[in-house]
Amino acid sequence: MKETEEIIQALLKFRNERDWEQFHNPKDLAIAINVEVGELLELFLWKNAHEAKEEKIKEELADVFAFAFLLAEKYNFDVKEIVLEKIKRNAEKYPIGKSKGNATKYNEL
Amino acid sequence: MKETEEIIQALLKFRNERDWEQFHNPKDLAIAINVEVGELLELFLWKNAHEAKEEKIKEELADVFAFAFLLAEKYNFDVKEIVLEKIKRNAEKYPIGKSKGNATKYNEL
Amino acid sequence: MKETEEIIQALLKFRNERDWEQFHNPKDLAIAINVEVGELLELFLWKNAHEAKEEKIKEELADVFAFAFLLAEKYNFDVKEIVLEKIKRNAEKYPIGKSKGNATKYNEL
Amino acid sequence: MKETEEIIQALLKFRNERDWEQFHNPKDLAIAINVEVGELLELFLWKNAHEAKEEKIKEELADVFAFAFLLAEKYNFDVKEIVLEKIKRNAEKYPIGKSKGNATKYNEL
Repeated sequence: MKETEEIIQALLKFRNERDWEQFHNPKDLAIAINVEVGELLELFLWKNAHEAKEEKIKEELADVFAFAFLLAEKYNFDVKEIVLEKIKRNAEKYPIGKSKGNATKYNEL
Repeated sequence: MKETEEIIQALLKFRNERDWEQFHNPKDLAIAINVEVGELLELFLWKNAHEAKEEKIKEELADVFAFAFLLAEKYNFDVKEIVLEKIKRNAEKYPIGKSKGNATKYNEL
Repeated sequence: MKETEEIIQALLKFRNERDWEQFHNPKDLAIAINVEVGELLELFLWKNAHEAKEEKIKEELADVFAFAFLLAEKYNFDVKEIVLEKIKRNAEKYPIGKSKGNATKYNEL
Repeated sequence: MKETEEIIQALLKFRNERDWEQFHNPKDLAIAINVEVGELLELFLWKNAHEAKEEKIKEELADVFAFAFLLAEKYNFDVKEIVLEKIKRNAEKYPIGKSKGNATKYNEL
């Protein structure tokens, strides 16, 4: 089994044992990712990046991934595939020549 | 190479070709995930879950994953490992008997 | 004194008594609003709107307002003025004839 | 009329002319605040605070306020009152002696 599939299967097992599929519609899953990423961001609030605590980042980032994988599963997205596709699109929006060393958004390049 | 490692390598290649590592400190990566997940959430705004457009969800979710993987890479987190660890912790916070069919948060169970 | 100015003065007094101005740069204030709005959103997660607890919504929304007012203060924005200006702009993007009863985003109208 | 009430009345007028009340349930309003604050945060992404563009911050912050006021209106919250109440609670969580010059979260003080 592919690694991302293994992750998803572990998440589904946890969810199904608790009969939580009923709550996991795509809209609430998108909300859940938002909530978790807010908790992740809080770890950096009023701080320099290096002051944030790695152990907590690990936990909050894991929550972000968990709900992101569950949302991907809802639509049968292959995570590797969609990320590689997006990289390809972004390569067109951000040609190396124009964007090298430059964080300007593509619509302002 | 493991699948999550392949995803990360593709992201790093894209980033390094553009010399963007200088912008990718963990705090801004956490902000980036937040920004992308806001765009994902917008697809569901004022709508029922099934009305959101799958093609756009795919793109925005890919962006969320991209920055989440890049943040994981900053700390050398193994994505599968941290998600499985979190599932284990959550299994303690949400014992099946208490939480079956019940979306109540653990601290209110 | 205008009401929004009174709110801001109360917030500044609280902040300055704790010598927290040093942390309140605009970027971290924007992060703070995000963190608080994530906590607000969590109150609705896996729920219908009417199931969320009003008392908690009051608290989390107050936090959102607090940091939003503090950010406005950083730039000397008059809150009433900027909201009225935005309504005016939105009235152009969303002419009544086209958008009545229709939640479609302006760029798709 | 109080200033916050004037702001709310202007927002309601704009909304009702477009017959948008049907979309404005509290859950979607909370989502809308999230979406707007994500756009606000994006203005600071990969940047130092002073590099963000004031004119755009004004617009995005206005959107955050707009939906926050509309959510307050749903519950008949008086914005000034709830912010002052929250300051009072926070004064207990963050006594001046302990928190002066210190951004540590109250549960870690």
